[in-house]
Amino acid sequence: MSYFPPRIQRMSGYVPGEQPTESGVIKLNTNENPYPPSPRVMETLRRADPEQLRRYPHPMGQAFREAAAKVLGVTPDMILCGNGADDVLNIAIRALTDAEHSMVWPGPTYTLCAVLARLHGCPVRELPFRPDYSLPIDELPDAGGSLTYVCNPNSPTATFVAPSDLAALARRLRGVLLIDEAYVDFAAQTCLPLAGELPNVLVVRTLSKGYSLAGLRFGYAVGSPELIAGLTKAKDSFNVDALSIAAATAAIEDQAYFRQNVERVCRERERLSAGLTKLGIAPLPSQANFVFARCPSPPAGRVYQALKDRNILVRHFDQPGLSEWLRITVGTPDQNDALLYELARIM
Amino acid sequence: MSYFPPRIQRMSGYVPGEQPTESGVIKLNTNENPYPPSPRVMETLRRADPEQLRRYPHPMGQAFREAAAKVLGVTPDMILCGNGADDVLNIAIRALTDAEHSMVWPGPTYTLCAVLARLHGCPVRELPFRPDYSLPIDELPDAGGSLTYVCNPNSPTATFVAPSDLAALARRLRGVLLIDEAYVDFAAQTCLPLAGELPNVLVVRTLSKGYSLAGLRFGYAVGSPELIAGLTKAKDSFNVDALSIAAATAAIEDQAYFRQNVERVCRERERLSAGLTKLGIAPLPSQANFVFARCPSPPAGRVYQALKDRNILVRHFDQPGLSEWLRITVGTPDQNDALLYELARIM
Repeated sequence: MSYFPPRIQRMSGYVPGEQPTESGVIKLNTNENPYPPSPRVMETLRRADPEQLRRYPHPMGQAFREAAAKVLGVTPDMILCGNGADDVLNIAIRALTDAEHSMVWPGPTYTLCAVLARLHGCPVRELPFRPDYSLPIDELPDAGGSLTYVCNPNSPTATFVAPSDLAALARRLRGVLLIDEAYVDFAAQTCLPLAGELPNVLVVRTLSKGYSLAGLRFGYAVGSPELIAGLTKAKDSFNVDALSIAAATAAIEDQAYFRQNVERVCRERERLSAGLTKLGIAPLPSQANFVFARCPSPPAGRVYQALKDRNILVRHFDQPGLSEWLRITVGTPDQNDALLYELARIM
Repeated sequence: MSYFPPRIQRMSGYVPGEQPTESGVIKLNTNENPYPPSPRVMETLRRADPEQLRRYPHPMGQAFREAAAKVLGVTPDMILCGNGADDVLNIAIRALTDAEHSMVWPGPTYTLCAVLARLHGCPVRELPFRPDYSLPIDELPDAGGSLTYVCNPNSPTATFVAPSDLAALARRLRGVLLIDEAYVDFAAQTCLPLAGELPNVLVVRTLSKGYSLAGLRFGYAVGSPELIAGLTKAKDSFNVDALSIAAATAAIEDQAYFRQNVERVCRERERLSAGLTKLGIAPLPSQANFVFARCPSPPAGRVYQALKDRNILVRHFDQPGLSEWLRITVGTPDQNDALLYELARIM
């Protein structure tokens, strides 16, 4: 006998990428940034004051909102802080969907969406990306989602949809368009301006990738003040903690460090892509800090395991439509060299 | 036109207690601990490593689970970490209730419950505590909640129900009994053993009060491994961050500091209660780090405002049944003296 309702009994939780505790593993499986966070973040933590911990944090993370508003050219009331972008995603699903209000996305995409939708009991419709990874732009509005989710750049494909296409989509939707820009720091363009122009666009970002802060759990949404106010009702009262607010604020204020870091990753992405192409597993054009490469022979699952045996972790999704592919995070030059060297021996 | 479903449009969010930014305010309104967290917590933060931030945290906060299991005498798989006890509460409601699975509690109690239940669209039944603040033990099982919530010690009343009564209640319930022990560090007894003895008891705790870490957002649940596994499906993938895990672990390992701190608060609670009694506003017997005192004349709302004008914040709930009462956090001896001095002038 279970105390849980059937929808929970039936579901399995989200499976995060492996986090090995041994040292010496080259970890290219969860799209972490290979470089450390800004020294200003560490300095902020060293200066942490017992009073910051003793008292409740600001419920909205106001210091971060103000700093981010300046960097992004929006107003603080257009920003909602989250305990990671996953929290923001969760808040949006909780606030905008239910058994009568559905969620729609082009797939394949971030697998957490399906888990969260099932959790909240909202109906779901996944429409396939077109073969060239552009949006199924006519089919998406007809699917009638109260919440339409587009990850851009998309995971796991690393592909990018032009902001003009997403603007056109938003104008045709009756519900909210959530554009998950977790990987946008590594892309040539952003949909951020749409959040200011269109009342139904919510842009979600994270400090996990571009700012090297996956361990801190800090993400945010940008949208109209009305959208942000509605979402605020659905968040935990104090969803971001005092240290995270301070550290995230320090990180976003250090744009010089951030840009330099992102440029290094983007340069390596091009070198890694060229190396993979030479090995016969050309990845899709990537606008993210990872690449997605089809590897039918030897089978991707075998290559994943062979790399793992050599202490290199990449991501393999053993799912229909994805099982021939590998998702590989861009590492440091040395890590990418090691990967290419071992791949050459395996292939 | 709103993008939000009617249940969100109609609701107002949770209203946290005021957090003044001015210095010089004596803050006795949100039940923060008046003393700083353990020096070991600050030392842990000073030693934070960029690698902790760069990489994703352990999805279950394993270091904390292991440390807490030792302190509590349970196994790590009986512990679920949360981004504050509010996150744990949210996870439990999300996992155990829905439109067909209701929530029941004796009231008045923690006002967040009603907000979360509305958010998740689950039916709710509040049954009044008996006049002596004991449980309506016959009525609660009949209400048929999939989740029954009891805050013990209760907020805002500070009163305590004997663990034997809660054990009797749990045995009569068909659903889960969540015992919110946010304030238990200041109580003479705990229901923690029930979490090991009864399959439907979940004990929820926080580091916000006894450990002076309200700013950190760290709470946890203790229950059978089966209950914890079910709840895990409903949590965010990485709901606790690397710094919080490290700091919370350091805090719970420093039991000597914790106990000394709690004893100071409990001593002051007795002194504050005696002082209030002398002023004619005897509080209910408190097992928490705050007291709840009826103040019909002058009206509690006026007393609250008069104290606020003198830079002392206490909590007044302007709600039916509560409007004649003040909830006052136990402060330092100096803060309590200032409160009693000003109250004597106001009364």
